Amino acid sequence: MDNQLSDLVNKELKVDVAAPNKSPENDKAGNHSKRTENDKDGNHSKGSQNEKGGSQSKGKGKSGKFVLKTPKGTRDYGPMEMAYRREVFNVIYSVFHMHGAVQIETPVFELKDVLTGKYGEDSKLIYDLEDQGGEILSLRYDLTVPFARYVAMNKIDNIKRYHVARVYRRDSPAMTRGRYREFYQCDFDIAGQFDAMIPDAECVQLVHQVLSKLGLGEFTIKINHRKILDGVFGSCGVPSEKFRPICSAVDKLDKSPWEEVRKEMVDEKGLDEEVADKIGNYVKLSGREELLETLANDELLKSSPSAQAGFADLKLLFQYCKSLGCAEHLVFDMGLARGLDYYTGVIYEAVLTAGQNFGEEGPVGSVAGGGRYDGLVGMFDPKKKTVPCVGLSFGIERLFTIYEQKMRAESNKVRATQTEVFVVTACKGMVHERLKLLGLLHEAGIKAEGSYKNNPKILNQLQYAEDNKIPLVALIGESEVEAGVVKIRDTVTREETTIKREELVETVRQKLGGL
Amino acid sequence: MDNQLSDLVNKELKVDVAAPNKSPENDKAGNHSKRTENDKDGNHSKGSQNEKGGSQSKGKGKSGKFVLKTPKGTRDYGPMEMAYRREVFNVIYSVFHMHGAVQIETPVFELKDVLTGKYGEDSKLIYDLEDQGGEILSLRYDLTVPFARYVAMNKIDNIKRYHVARVYRRDSPAMTRGRYREFYQCDFDIAGQFDAMIPDAECVQLVHQVLSKLGLGEFTIKINHRKILDGVFGSCGVPSEKFRPICSAVDKLDKSPWEEVRKEMVDEKGLDEEVADKIGNYVKLSGREELLETLANDELLKSSPSAQAGFADLKLLFQYCKSLGCAEHLVFDMGLARGLDYYTGVIYEAVLTAGQNFGEEGPVGSVAGGGRYDGLVGMFDPKKKTVPCVGLSFGIERLFTIYEQKMRAESNKVRATQTEVFVVTACKGMVHERLKLLGLLHEAGIKAEGSYKNNPKILNQLQYAEDNKIPLVALIGESEVEAGVVKIRDTVTREETTIKREELVETVRQKLGGL
Repeated sequence: MDNQLSDLVNKELKVDVAAPNKSPENDKAGNHSKRTENDKDGNHSKGSQNEKGGSQSKGKGKSGKFVLKTPKGTRDYGPMEMAYRREVFNVIYSVFHMHGAVQIETPVFELKDVLTGKYGEDSKLIYDLEDQGGEILSLRYDLTVPFARYVAMNKIDNIKRYHVARVYRRDSPAMTRGRYREFYQCDFDIAGQFDAMIPDAECVQLVHQVLSKLGLGEFTIKINHRKILDGVFGSCGVPSEKFRPICSAVDKLDKSPWEEVRKEMVDEKGLDEEVADKIGNYVKLSGREELLETLANDELLKSSPSAQAGFADLKLLFQYCKSLGCAEHLVFDMGLARGLDYYTGVIYEAVLTAGQNFGEEGPVGSVAGGGRYDGLVGMFDPKKKTVPCVGLSFGIERLFTIYEQKMRAESNKVRATQTEVFVVTACKGMVHERLKLLGLLHEAGIKAEGSYKNNPKILNQLQYAEDNKIPLVALIGESEVEAGVVKIRDTVTREETTIKREELVETVRQKLGGL
Repeated sequence: MDNQLSDLVNKELKVDVAAPNKSPENDKAGNHSKRTENDKDGNHSKGSQNEKGGSQSKGKGKSGKFVLKTPKGTRDYGPMEMAYRREVFNVIYSVFHMHGAVQIETPVFELKDVLTGKYGEDSKLIYDLEDQGGEILSLRYDLTVPFARYVAMNKIDNIKRYHVARVYRRDSPAMTRGRYREFYQCDFDIAGQFDAMIPDAECVQLVHQVLSKLGLGEFTIKINHRKILDGVFGSCGVPSEKFRPICSAVDKLDKSPWEEVRKEMVDEKGLDEEVADKIGNYVKLSGREELLETLANDELLKSSPSAQAGFADLKLLFQYCKSLGCAEHLVFDMGLARGLDYYTGVIYEAVLTAGQNFGEEGPVGSVAGGGRYDGLVGMFDPKKKTVPCVGLSFGIERLFTIYEQKMRAESNKVRATQTEVFVVTACKGMVHERLKLLGLLHEAGIKAEGSYKNNPKILNQLQYAEDNKIPLVALIGESEVEAGVVKIRDTVTREETTIKREELVETVRQKLGGL
């Protein structure tokens, strides 16, 4: 192909390369590029689809008996979504590895007995498998209980592990808010008998690092302590058997006003009004270290050993976080309670504070949370030998959504593929030449693709490279093959250089290095 | 700490660093290092455990009512196994990306209707979920049927995607041979209407590349074609309704001698003896391109349009593979049939040929397989519009096992963690100094850990670094803090250098770069 033809080709290209946002990869749904002309010419656009469709579409057949859909509360993830997810995961994995965490994996289902009695009234949300003549199994509800089972079963004394996997809850899905029945959890836990607050501080540091690296904007890490809450409850006159139900009422403070929470305490949980009001005075408080000091000297709490133990822990936690350089986002929030029963010490929760929300659905809320649970492993040990644990879980689905919104808003550099070179043939009967060039590039570890047609049109091939933001094109026609040369074309600038075939790999590497 | 103390410490270290295979990470089970003295001193050894345990242990309580185990046919994966798996996955992902494949993800369960009628008699192995008042769901049996459902549901015309996930089969587990009820599949598929054999050749090339890169030794990629098999069956006198049952008898040739397969054909499937013998003459044949030529001119097959179409495809496939540089391991094997009903064209299977086996359990066998299935997507489309597909699946659990064996046999460089620096404090009351150094290193992106004890013994900390093959130790005592310096210790050579605190990050980077 001579330069004249190449010039012609440039004029004919349908998409203005200066307007990358117009490319099919950037359609609203984000999953699949729409069908383009290229498809007809044997290029495989990345998950192209027609106008209709989308993960939740129902392709009801004419017979009406078969509905084509994913199960309620679940969805498929398409190429672009997976590309964003890979980026978020890579950040989180890098932080996990920075802390020397090992990775483990457990089965997607457990014996039902393993899950029984761990989740309180949420147990009704557990997915059970059918009894097909064997063990009675349930899908995991979270990664924490399987972790405790793993630690107990393998008689592990200490471990710092991460586990990233999907969990299952038969909840009412709220897909627009990112609440699904099948969703990822991303857990980091430290099990072992160690000195107070050192592993706990590491967990806070890790949340701080992940949120900083993801760059999703301002965040706050709220901390509290179950012993402080119990101290408050006890000092205010809550009977000890009501500690957990009252705690779970306090947990609703992030979504409901105090008046509603108070109503639940009094009307549903039978608390005296004065007791509820006393609690109200405490759980509305939040502040920094100074508040810890103030409350430690509070007339009522001064005599509560439980509260005092909690204050001592949190003071130490603040100090350790300062040494680690992660104290600035820390807020002591007396209204933080966390839902799960099994927490026994420090609890924390990270929230994004500025800007980020799910469109009209309101703010994102909590993106990470966790705490200390010193009793859970013991529930699985025949001798009740326990291993103290502290850990956290990232609300990874929410992080994905925010990250994707951010990336799309900013510059949209994420591609679904990583292809570096598209091999283009300029005339007919060159499929073998194309494959030879592909073999050569792959041999050198270069990510390269070509058309799946014998005789694709040159225009469509170049269009494909531009649509898919493949940075380089390696172009050959009969004359190039005869002369033992290859034309290298920069997809953005459209500049072409003719080089010797044996210089191809080196030239491509140089050009990719300079991009 | 002065140098004398440091020398003393070196003499006292319990593990000879010249014998890394003696470290606790290398115990037989491979999952968990055994409990070491270090544990008592607040270092978190990576999943340490006592003598007993292991994934399949049953910790029956004294009450006798609760058995602590994973469900039948499933297991946990510990830190070392996960580290090996990450390496194998990284190789495979890199090859997928080299081919410009996008990634998708589908739910772990599907509507039961989606799976119905796709797996023949294997359908009895499908895990059903309990009907808890909603949709009737089953765990996925493979990734191919969900892929076809995804393509049809989203009306995708073409896509090249990979999908790595676990699938579920209620089969008799043979765990020592790596056969589980829950196991990974690692699939790559190309969907779309393209010219003959170009995507098919890419699939063969991809298998070739992955197995070459993993370096697991010699391998063969067997190829055959369903149209050739059907041509043989037809020409030999098999009634067309028996094509698939006879095909599935041929499929057993890799495990059973011809006599047994013949018996199944005659006794179970009611084939005439002469017909079976005629088939036998063909399915025993294997060779290279020349055999294709010979058989294309075979008296009986010459008049079979089906067989001739298959021969033409395979000839083209051989040629394309030559151009791609991946033909040398290709063997045309008339006895290759593949189990699944849905294949319609080229089929292939890769086997490791030398050395690798599961201990006393015999050779590994197939490590990858696939083929063309042009009708599956149409089964989901309301208008029966189909999208031709070709793809492959890696037997990733087998690859894991072989890779792990190879790594252990060779040099065992794989670590469960990636920690680069262990921060060691030499005297009491230095926990804050340790945390500050950790914060500093993390801030610079360096993977660093320290003890979780307030006052750990220096010997135990150094021991921990050696046991866990952490390359560098950053050591501070009171005098170092006072002088604003840090001692950097090379864990292998035990050489120490004292540097200024502000040079720490740069020095560590240099030393890590030189390792």
